[in-house]
Amino acid sequence: MKKKLFDYAKDNARRVTIKGSEGIAVGMKEVALQNGESILLYDTAGVYADENYEIDLKKGLPPFRKPWIDARLAKDGAVKTQYWYAKNGIITPEMEYVAIRENQGAQGPESITPEFVRAEIAAGRAILPANPNHPEAEPMIIGSRFLVKINANIGNSALGSDIEEEVEKALWAVKWGSDTVMDLSTGKNIHQTREAILRNTPVPIGTVPMYQALEKVYGQIEKLTWEVFRETLIEQAEQGVDYFTIHAGILREHLPHALRRVTGIVSRGGSIMAKWMEINQTENFIYTHFNEVCDILARYDIAASLGDGLRPGSLADANDAAQFGELKTLGKLAKICRENDVQVIIEGPGHVPMHLIQENMELQKKYCDEAPFYTLGPLVSDIGAGYDHITAAIGGAMIGWYGTAMLCYVTTKEHLALPNKDDVREAVVTFKLAAHAADIAKGHPGAMHRDLAMSRARYEFRWRDQFNLSLDPERARRFHLEMIKNSDADYCGMCGPHFCAMRITKSIQKKD
Amino acid sequence: MKKKLFDYAKDNARRVTIKGSEGIAVGMKEVALQNGESILLYDTAGVYADENYEIDLKKGLPPFRKPWIDARLAKDGAVKTQYWYAKNGIITPEMEYVAIRENQGAQGPESITPEFVRAEIAAGRAILPANPNHPEAEPMIIGSRFLVKINANIGNSALGSDIEEEVEKALWAVKWGSDTVMDLSTGKNIHQTREAILRNTPVPIGTVPMYQALEKVYGQIEKLTWEVFRETLIEQAEQGVDYFTIHAGILREHLPHALRRVTGIVSRGGSIMAKWMEINQTENFIYTHFNEVCDILARYDIAASLGDGLRPGSLADANDAAQFGELKTLGKLAKICRENDVQVIIEGPGHVPMHLIQENMELQKKYCDEAPFYTLGPLVSDIGAGYDHITAAIGGAMIGWYGTAMLCYVTTKEHLALPNKDDVREAVVTFKLAAHAADIAKGHPGAMHRDLAMSRARYEFRWRDQFNLSLDPERARRFHLEMIKNSDADYCGMCGPHFCAMRITKSIQKKD
Repeated sequence: MKKKLFDYAKDNARRVTIKGSEGIAVGMKEVALQNGESILLYDTAGVYADENYEIDLKKGLPPFRKPWIDARLAKDGAVKTQYWYAKNGIITPEMEYVAIRENQGAQGPESITPEFVRAEIAAGRAILPANPNHPEAEPMIIGSRFLVKINANIGNSALGSDIEEEVEKALWAVKWGSDTVMDLSTGKNIHQTREAILRNTPVPIGTVPMYQALEKVYGQIEKLTWEVFRETLIEQAEQGVDYFTIHAGILREHLPHALRRVTGIVSRGGSIMAKWMEINQTENFIYTHFNEVCDILARYDIAASLGDGLRPGSLADANDAAQFGELKTLGKLAKICRENDVQVIIEGPGHVPMHLIQENMELQKKYCDEAPFYTLGPLVSDIGAGYDHITAAIGGAMIGWYGTAMLCYVTTKEHLALPNKDDVREAVVTFKLAAHAADIAKGHPGAMHRDLAMSRARYEFRWRDQFNLSLDPERARRFHLEMIKNSDADYCGMCGPHFCAMRITKSIQKKD
Repeated sequence: MKKKLFDYAKDNARRVTIKGSEGIAVGMKEVALQNGESILLYDTAGVYADENYEIDLKKGLPPFRKPWIDARLAKDGAVKTQYWYAKNGIITPEMEYVAIRENQGAQGPESITPEFVRAEIAAGRAILPANPNHPEAEPMIIGSRFLVKINANIGNSALGSDIEEEVEKALWAVKWGSDTVMDLSTGKNIHQTREAILRNTPVPIGTVPMYQALEKVYGQIEKLTWEVFRETLIEQAEQGVDYFTIHAGILREHLPHALRRVTGIVSRGGSIMAKWMEINQTENFIYTHFNEVCDILARYDIAASLGDGLRPGSLADANDAAQFGELKTLGKLAKICRENDVQVIIEGPGHVPMHLIQENMELQKKYCDEAPFYTLGPLVSDIGAGYDHITAAIGGAMIGWYGTAMLCYVTTKEHLALPNKDDVREAVVTFKLAAHAADIAKGHPGAMHRDLAMSRARYEFRWRDQFNLSLDPERARRFHLEMIKNSDADYCGMCGPHFCAMRITKSIQKKD
């Protein structure tokens, strides 16, 4: 692992911490600007960004959340969920932490208070994924009234990749701004890969436990049982996974609809469960054991991410009876989660043409009582092979504006292959932009300050500030310097010195 | 110039022509699918895609539209515009051509008839840019009820690039699907570069005559005159330019608003005119001579693309008094264009947050009496440096859905440098996807057939069809084959053979 994976000095920046109540210190990226100002940016890098931090993958990250967890355990005698605390009027250190974090850049009176965070969690409109067994993770919040978050999927398939490579991929995604990481490994060393990721990643980790359960029965779907699945949930809960994708909503009654589709079932978990139901001629065992699932989730404060096993895999299948039938079921399950004090979010599509996106958001809110929505794109066309980060970013930005709380990234390799590091970087930055565009459109109080700083830097030809304020300073710098060997030029390589609109405009202003 | 720039055989495709009335033959790309079917795709490559066509840049493309032009000239005694013909109830061969072209893939009764094309042009809701002096160009239509078109900007700046390189860039953009090309050259050899592009490009060519006019006075804005500008219009009209960006709408009354902005004036043409007005303390000479401009445009059937000299260059400046003040003026000028039988479109932003995009479209329709809208993005965030093709594609897809007729591409290099060939390819494909997503959302009858064919190919693991149906077959093929050395695999590299959702689904269907 390269020591300089997170080298903020290159961006004329440093990690600073904003202090809250005792023991609370929220890391942010402070960029020093050429005009003497500085700006605070939301940051996912954790202590890796500390210039003095020594990376040691064997040792793992400091478990800084442990004192908070231990204090609660001593007081309450058992793990309670962030939802339970919120419902009972208690503001946890995690809630205060995210309030400070979300307020980066907010102008005027802080609009995101710890009490606001608590109230949103209590209302079920937001979750704070924080398994006590993952004390290395920095608290973050997923909800429609907060910054739109993004998730990066990593994980080896049967076709490749090793453990250290997966950890590096997770940190690489975090470096570019991923708010959570899902480990979707399905090949060898699932347990060890996940362990290494959990101990070394400063963001919440999600998984799809079904994948490992299936590995445990050697890939034979007919051998899957509730017991194997239950055992897998507990194994992963003990390790510290923060949220589980659970395909509890796909039912036998939905299958005839799904099998008539152009692209059938495109969710791996959904297809496995559909096959299991067909073989056993009986109902989804996660659905029939859902209260027991909730018991486990509550015991570890793991958030349920209710999987959309019937998400559309093509425009032709969007918003159909299979998809919305399952969504209704997910709404019922979300209710059961809340009755069991379990934090819950709902997963969504998939492939959806632009004019059908809003209906997804509206029905999700209605059926699921405003539980946070977590979507994969949606992709607004089926023909984007090789460019599906773009078809998905278009749909993602729109649904984020409409109220979706988290976007799962889609890479250029979608439908074709597993992403490499370049693809992960491209996809994370792409989705950060989509999420950020949504934050601006929905009026998040901290969203606009970075754009304003960038535009001012642009108008004043502060090139280094433009690089450092962008989401990928290295790329912006490289593009500019390939053409102009000078970071102090008062023009850019697009128009050259004689045709710079901004320079001409300023010559007018100076006289006026 | 590589002979194999357009090698359709690689994509299991060929150029075919669909015949209309005598002398009308519309080129399309016919892809042969693995299941024995074939599909027709809209195509911009012209005769270059003919496997037997010999590229000869010196000789240029065959002037196939010349007989139509000559016949009209013989009959009418002078050039009349497509708008004039449309208004007078005459369907030109160009109109029939675009009707056939737009109907690719339409299911059931053809909904786009030559009469429909004529009526839309007559109503001012569409233009058909077709300078008689550019008989090499294939007719295409720009209007809200047709396929959303995209434009690629090319052109050398003072900082680089030569003539053959610019022609290659134009053809490269056309290869990836650009519907028009704007030559924005500002450096040396402007005339010769444009000549070479016009003689060798099968799509309409646009320019910003102000750039050359300024070169003629050695870059000294104070020396610009109506006479120099007029002479430039005629020079370019004679060469065959199909549409001109004309910054006639920026007036002295708008300047105080613009100078108060975060990023002032970001249009090159706009800033030049603003400076000229300040120096001369008099009104925009293009505005004061607008009837004479229209005389020239009508004489050559050049479409006016009324430039938005005050488009916002930052989110903070979006939808402000400067922008909408100019837009109102553009509406008045559009009316004058029509009174002079000149085809007209209106240029639009720029940088606009998602929630303010729709207002742009609505006011444009209202002020400009439904003249086609032609936008640059809009970019939905200011912080996308290095990734602004994405911030612009998000806004572009949305405004296309709302009714914008043509999107100007934005490359990854926007704000930083001139694009190279890779950047042009990436940007063209990105904007084709944005435009296509808009076509689907607005219900263009020919939009969905390609997505459906792709999804069926996907579900049947017809990998080669998936490559060939995508917008960049070479990239899709490469991504897949990097991971799986087999184009007949019934799984993909993302999930591997054991976890393929579609394969599992099909195993259910087979039994049912």
